[in-house]
Amino acid sequence: RSMYYGKGDVFVYRSFASPLEGVTTIPESDFCGRRNVIFGMNVQVALKGDAFLTSFTEGDNSLVVATDSMKNFVLYQAGKYDGATMEGFLRFVADKFLERYDHISGVEISGSQFLFANARIGGADGVVDSGKVFREGTREMPYAYVETARNRDGNAEIVRRQSGVTDLHLIKIKGSSFYGYIHDEYTTLPESFDRPLYIYLSIYWRYDDDHAPDQSAAEYVAAEQVQGIAETIFHELDSPSIQYLIYEIGKRVLRRFPQLSEVSFESNNKTWETVLEETVSGGDSKVFTDPRPPYGFQGFTVFREDLADEGSE
Amino acid sequence: RSMYYGKGDVFVYRSFASPLEGVTTIPESDFCGRRNVIFGMNVQVALKGDAFLTSFTEGDNSLVVATDSMKNFVLYQAGKYDGATMEGFLRFVADKFLERYDHISGVEISGSQFLFANARIGGADGVVDSGKVFREGTREMPYAYVETARNRDGNAEIVRRQSGVTDLHLIKIKGSSFYGYIHDEYTTLPESFDRPLYIYLSIYWRYDDDHAPDQSAAEYVAAEQVQGIAETIFHELDSPSIQYLIYEIGKRVLRRFPQLSEVSFESNNKTWETVLEETVSGGDSKVFTDPRPPYGFQGFTVFREDLADEGSE
Amino acid sequence: RSMYYGKGDVFVYRSFASPLEGVTTIPESDFCGRRNVIFGMNVQVALKGDAFLTSFTEGDNSLVVATDSMKNFVLYQAGKYDGATMEGFLRFVADKFLERYDHISGVEISGSQFLFANARIGGADGVVDSGKVFREGTREMPYAYVETARNRDGNAEIVRRQSGVTDLHLIKIKGSSFYGYIHDEYTTLPESFDRPLYIYLSIYWRYDDDHAPDQSAAEYVAAEQVQGIAETIFHELDSPSIQYLIYEIGKRVLRRFPQLSEVSFESNNKTWETVLEETVSGGDSKVFTDPRPPYGFQGFTVFREDLADEGSE
Amino acid sequence: RSMYYGKGDVFVYRSFASPLEGVTTIPESDFCGRRNVIFGMNVQVALKGDAFLTSFTEGDNSLVVATDSMKNFVLYQAGKYDGATMEGFLRFVADKFLERYDHISGVEISGSQFLFANARIGGADGVVDSGKVFREGTREMPYAYVETARNRDGNAEIVRRQSGVTDLHLIKIKGSSFYGYIHDEYTTLPESFDRPLYIYLSIYWRYDDDHAPDQSAAEYVAAEQVQGIAETIFHELDSPSIQYLIYEIGKRVLRRFPQLSEVSFESNNKTWETVLEETVSGGDSKVFTDPRPPYGFQGFTVFREDLADEGSE
Repeated sequence: RSMYYGKGDVFVYRSFASPLEGVTTIPESDFCGRRNVIFGMNVQVALKGDAFLTSFTEGDNSLVVATDSMKNFVLYQAGKYDGATMEGFLRFVADKFLERYDHISGVEISGSQFLFANARIGGADGVVDSGKVFREGTREMPYAYVETARNRDGNAEIVRRQSGVTDLHLIKIKGSSFYGYIHDEYTTLPESFDRPLYIYLSIYWRYDDDHAPDQSAAEYVAAEQVQGIAETIFHELDSPSIQYLIYEIGKRVLRRFPQLSEVSFESNNKTWETVLEETVSGGDSKVFTDPRPPYGFQGFTVFREDLADEGSE
Repeated sequence: RSMYYGKGDVFVYRSFASPLEGVTTIPESDFCGRRNVIFGMNVQVALKGDAFLTSFTEGDNSLVVATDSMKNFVLYQAGKYDGATMEGFLRFVADKFLERYDHISGVEISGSQFLFANARIGGADGVVDSGKVFREGTREMPYAYVETARNRDGNAEIVRRQSGVTDLHLIKIKGSSFYGYIHDEYTTLPESFDRPLYIYLSIYWRYDDDHAPDQSAAEYVAAEQVQGIAETIFHELDSPSIQYLIYEIGKRVLRRFPQLSEVSFESNNKTWETVLEETVSGGDSKVFTDPRPPYGFQGFTVFREDLADEGSE
Repeated sequence: RSMYYGKGDVFVYRSFASPLEGVTTIPESDFCGRRNVIFGMNVQVALKGDAFLTSFTEGDNSLVVATDSMKNFVLYQAGKYDGATMEGFLRFVADKFLERYDHISGVEISGSQFLFANARIGGADGVVDSGKVFREGTREMPYAYVETARNRDGNAEIVRRQSGVTDLHLIKIKGSSFYGYIHDEYTTLPESFDRPLYIYLSIYWRYDDDHAPDQSAAEYVAAEQVQGIAETIFHELDSPSIQYLIYEIGKRVLRRFPQLSEVSFESNNKTWETVLEETVSGGDSKVFTDPRPPYGFQGFTVFREDLADEGSE
Repeated sequence: RSMYYGKGDVFVYRSFASPLEGVTTIPESDFCGRRNVIFGMNVQVALKGDAFLTSFTEGDNSLVVATDSMKNFVLYQAGKYDGATMEGFLRFVADKFLERYDHISGVEISGSQFLFANARIGGADGVVDSGKVFREGTREMPYAYVETARNRDGNAEIVRRQSGVTDLHLIKIKGSSFYGYIHDEYTTLPESFDRPLYIYLSIYWRYDDDHAPDQSAAEYVAAEQVQGIAETIFHELDSPSIQYLIYEIGKRVLRRFPQLSEVSFESNNKTWETVLEETVSGGDSKVFTDPRPPYGFQGFTVFREDLADEGSE
């Protein structure tokens, strides 16, 4: 049966964590690491185990780790972690929970990372990175999920794991279309041959069985790199639909990162409505406004087999 | 593989829909029906089917029902539906989708209902219900989910179905405690023997195989009734934890409604912090403030077998 | 110059406060008081005074009351207050600030009140009010604002004061129109002769110089009463515009409450769009959906003189 | 009396607007212009005039410009505007309203600008700006407000005007303190000698009578420049309070931009709470978490005279 309890919105900020170095670079991005002067994230953790059953059925709190204590636990472990990635930290915390409490049989933990950016300060040396002052993280956030369970020997094992980048908001002002769909008695949407395609996009990926995000920096796939691929494909492709666009992004991600087995997408369509096709500026200058709600969504998973299907490509 | 697309936030309002009448009443609630002068909800719908694969892999839109058309479809069916419940409407729409489009193999559709309340108007006859002016729906919202798939004969079959009521926010100012939990090096939460327990609660239920929410009003379980049970149990019980409270609510729901097979809970703890134990008013008068975030959460499912375990109760 | 500092979102909940009794009733509402088992509100307070100038210009903190201490101050006074209204409490706190700190010359304080509603519990006696369990406050919230300043004698004086009710969301499904407005090259809105008018409405009022909200319950104007007038007028009137509707509400409020000098409105138009003029139910049954954003707004103040203009009415 | 009506959330996006060039650079920022491939903003506009009185008092719509038409008007003018700044565009629209409609006596219009950033795409030439794909604007947004009124000659005149940048969120991990404030019976906040000061900051400025934001690019003050000053001062200063920090920022802004007469601030304090003073990383590495709500706020205006007071500085 469904039985769990835990704590969400545990905000953890560690200053001067280990820098992320040695990442394998790709052509679509100049990302090569993170300094981790601030290593911050929003963590959600849930504990599982049959031992908790009597807390529900009998109101017996004697085996209950209070959710306030869980929060303290996560914050405490943030001082012990010497790695450089959220994936590593979440795994570290999950393992510590099973080590510390014998009666817990499984942990689900996830996080969204804040990518604080150096403030830019001006002075005698020109305008340079601050190193002390930072701007709050971007809208796009790295995401990670780890689920562990105690195996027969009593040790923690990974049950499920996923990495991701959420809430990319990207607009391409020219070069997208949407036509040729079913036209029937329910259709009022006009076809579009050059629309300003605006997408909200979250991308998630899994490593295959021989690789893991916390094994070595060289095989770590960074959210910034996947974002770079998404932006590059969006730029390169004259897309006939969001469906096709995310498929192409997925294939490129799998080609660049052989350590991954699959890439999944959740997308929304916020494409602007064109109000004026011409302006005083001439050329391609137009006027747009926000689309009328509601917004369409898509979900799709690309597998490594999808590359094989392509033959000589 | 994960493959779906659809439309969320389709707001549907039907005036003068069929009233919900003939509901079986229970002691914990005076609910006996809904007039449905405004029958309104926020619908999310997703379509599934292998036929959509080429829209992703090849950008072939020829079998794509545009999400804008899906929205139109849902709104159109709202004029055709002659039932009185959201569960019935969602099933109706799901069936219509499979009827209309041969290449669709499954539909997932869910909704949150707006319970508009009659405005109160005063005049020569005292203060009475308006019948024309309504206040926007309450925070608590009925919820329903239906998933259908085409079977071998090409007909729609229910795959999964759930009803619910979301976002009950309830505070009990006296008579709740929380103590006896694990105290160790991670514990800073003080025990509490009379706390102002504040819960956020969403409750979901399933009918057993012989019953269904859209079969007859007499076996329909209304969100207002489950809310009545939750409020009554919360009032009656001196609870040692949210865990125990929701278990007791779940058992009462299953006892009142033999047509249900299970009840699930998602809860949050927003219990106020006591600032002053005494005030000028004397008695039990106190001063509280909001708790420090973050908030704990619980998830649990109660089955009919949980009643059997209780012996002679 | 603009110079202030303070604390917002101070959540104050006082249990078993003095009940509000002895309110003068009106025909448009059956409101006759509040039990105040939970007297709760969200307070914002700002302090002013030239003494704070050096905290800005020189970083001299010696006269700074920390905003954390302000929060403690407000919570502490909640235990000392023996009145029954938010207007009274805010005035009480403002006065206490000037009493306690000589160097403060003025206080601005406002609040939004949570109207917790009794949960309904069922048992042997039927379904009755709980008295112990409450539902979280409604969307509509009473509002109050008080600004005080120290006068020449060093005593607190009221500078400005306002009461209100915010976020009424009301829909009238028949009997509203909007036509006859300017039609020119910028007009695309179709005229409407029977629209489902949906308004968001906040209403604010002031007492005249001879009356005050904290003087006696008999001259206290309750948010619930003004809401009752708004609902009644909306029901009675076939309105040609929101502008006219709020003017009529304002006049009725001033007629019912001679102790008030003015009533102000902030409104939004969220009128639904009609999708289907007919349904299987026949009669007036229709299907609507949410309007396309953005939404129009109106602001207006009605004065007592506006009644005089009406002659024999 | 208060009387206005209008439209908020008018989203306007103009592609390929005139680039902003020729801005006077300052040492604290490397900002030198905006390409304006997407010139986008969220506009709110309200119309005023005694001519609208009968629309309220008599329901006479004959002089009402529907708010839907106002939205169309704003979008239409976006195609006519050939300038490069939001300040210029809002003034342009306000003037057009008074030109077009004789019975309008004043316009209030404001906007928040979306600073879309070039996506970064990788290929044979390395990683470069896309020019076609953009990321949604940053959290920090330029702000502008213009109020105009018809003068005796019937022409539009500026009544009030303000520029700004809203929602800077900046954290400085070392080098801020807060101590020496009043300690009394309401004080529980511990003094802090090295706190991770986290501020939310909105900054507003006015030009003096001889200058204007829409006169020439050389005297235009860009939001990015003021942000650069805020970040630089925050970095340079060991601040004893937010009050002192914003005063120093204000003075620097006025020194850099002699065309401005005043700078105003609205700030919030979101300073993290220190959980662990030491971690496995040694050095200054610590662990923090979000502060307990509520948050303090400050408001202050710095005038040019504040510079004069400083003598030889």
